Amino acid sequence: MKRISVKSEKHVILTGDRPSGPLHLGHYVGSLRQRVELQHKNKQFIIIADAQALTDNAENPEKVRKNIFEVALDYLAVGIDPAVTTIFIQSLVPELAELTMYYLNLVTIPRLQRNPTVKDEIKQRGFGTGIPVGFFAYPVSQAADITAFKADIVPVGEDQLPMIEQTKEIVRSFNRIYNCFVLIEPKALLSSVPRLPGTDGKGKMSKSLGNVISLCDSADEICRKVKNMYTDPKHLRVEDPGTVEGNPVFAYLDAFDPDKNSLQEMKDQYRHGGLGDVVVKHRLLEVLLAELDPIRARRKEFTQDPAHIMRILKEGTEAAREVASRTLAEVREAMHIDYFVNK
Amino acid sequence: MKRISVKSEKHVILTGDRPSGPLHLGHYVGSLRQRVELQHKNKQFIIIADAQALTDNAENPEKVRKNIFEVALDYLAVGIDPAVTTIFIQSLVPELAELTMYYLNLVTIPRLQRNPTVKDEIKQRGFGTGIPVGFFAYPVSQAADITAFKADIVPVGEDQLPMIEQTKEIVRSFNRIYNCFVLIEPKALLSSVPRLPGTDGKGKMSKSLGNVISLCDSADEICRKVKNMYTDPKHLRVEDPGTVEGNPVFAYLDAFDPDKNSLQEMKDQYRHGGLGDVVVKHRLLEVLLAELDPIRARRKEFTQDPAHIMRILKEGTEAAREVASRTLAEVREAMHIDYFVNK
Repeated sequence: MKRISVKSEKHVILTGDRPSGPLHLGHYVGSLRQRVELQHKNKQFIIIADAQALTDNAENPEKVRKNIFEVALDYLAVGIDPAVTTIFIQSLVPELAELTMYYLNLVTIPRLQRNPTVKDEIKQRGFGTGIPVGFFAYPVSQAADITAFKADIVPVGEDQLPMIEQTKEIVRSFNRIYNCFVLIEPKALLSSVPRLPGTDGKGKMSKSLGNVISLCDSADEICRKVKNMYTDPKHLRVEDPGTVEGNPVFAYLDAFDPDKNSLQEMKDQYRHGGLGDVVVKHRLLEVLLAELDPIRARRKEFTQDPAHIMRILKEGTEAAREVASRTLAEVREAMHIDYFVNK
Repeated sequence: MKRISVKSEKHVILTGDRPSGPLHLGHYVGSLRQRVELQHKNKQFIIIADAQALTDNAENPEKVRKNIFEVALDYLAVGIDPAVTTIFIQSLVPELAELTMYYLNLVTIPRLQRNPTVKDEIKQRGFGTGIPVGFFAYPVSQAADITAFKADIVPVGEDQLPMIEQTKEIVRSFNRIYNCFVLIEPKALLSSVPRLPGTDGKGKMSKSLGNVISLCDSADEICRKVKNMYTDPKHLRVEDPGTVEGNPVFAYLDAFDPDKNSLQEMKDQYRHGGLGDVVVKHRLLEVLLAELDPIRARRKEFTQDPAHIMRILKEGTEAAREVASRTLAEVREAMHIDYFVNK
């Protein structure tokens, strides 16, 4: 896996989420924890990609609207600090729409059709042939998000690598055609943490599959979900040998148990026989609650002052606009369409 | 041909041009003359569609930049009055890009592929399969241009009717999905004047075919072009009978000669035999210069004060932004994505 060593000089990071549901443990392990770490040594922008969420939720904007607030709460609850991280709402930065319009001229239809991520997502969503143009073109809008902030690092999962490739191509085309160095090629920062499976052990966490532990779940809900978690189906009696690999309980322990030695001992004992699922799940519940209790408490605190959240989003969005509008001005200058600028 | 009777109450008209070359007699007969007439009884917006011109000129923005000024000069020269008509530059109204992004979610790829105008233009431009997404999607951007100003009338040629149909569909989808009446369905105002052929008699005027008389051509150039105009190739001697139909000299006389009786007499004589092309062309030159001399004089006058033109464009663009941003606010309200608006 290609890793980028984040050195002492500041990188610009662009990351974010579509606000189509509350964030869950998969987001936490896969990206939120990393964002909390990265925010102090880098300039981090977090985009709440509502316009992108609308590309396949055009008929349900209320869902997107509601989740902007929930996602922002999740960010603050896990420890993303708006004093150092700029959290902003995509649709309120019109410069991103403008950049998208210019980039759309640099990308052909067949090029987008070849994008494996888009192919997969189209299949998943079952649009059939009726793909909305906005959804089809979202990699270009993503390129606008990344380049507007001159982000040089974009944390992604393996499946998102083609999106970064598309952005790089747009950057290279733009800089070549307009004979400039305005846009910056981003590098993918691949997560070193394996993807957390759903509680049913079936691949990806997904709200629609009901296999998700959300960051806003109560202690009782977490307890119930851990109790019902899928384990090794062949591990029927305590004394039977069990399988650790592909067992979501151990995958979660890998992600959350801070005591790696005792975890190794548990794994050995489980494999050998003599360790029951109840004990393992008890340990998981313990470490999960230890990590999630303070997050839930902070979330509750923030919930009590919605105006404060709105202020954070508003200020973040204003700060983001400032940066994006500087880039847009450079883009227009490079394209020679800065008609009213006095030089 | 479906005509709309422009009644005494004010209509909102959206019309305009891609600034990809200076305007010519075809534009003058087909639309500019009509705009001068329409501007007093209606609220008329004229868009200089630079962003649209870039969809197939991404590699040549200098051409677009240069022609914005030329097109504006042509407008003023023919008598479009910036005191009543709002002339504006598309790319400087970011609200149009934002509306386009939302509308792109309401239109599918196969729907755009069926658009006959886009099909034709793709064939003409020879993109092959490498159509830029921006070009493919320009009917959606056009819908944004029309609806942003709540235009209820759009003057078009027959070949542009599918574009109006696409806009109507977007309006209906938007108002249905978001349960509102924010967007207005436009009506096409079809020109009653037949399209002016090229001076070579071959269909459409096109700068690349060299069969164009431009509004900025000098009297000498016009004289030369009229002299070399294609006529009836079978009309070899003055006494031979000639054909009026499909003869560009008569098509131009139809468009420009104010004396319809004498024109009818000339046609009869030409058909019968005994009227030479030299005489007919002499008459055409006379009426053309009578119409174009004052336009050229005004053009020259305006050319002497480029700052004045820039001021007109700047003020028009500001006025256009005001209207478009009101519509965008209503659109965002209807979509429930007006997050920071106090109600």
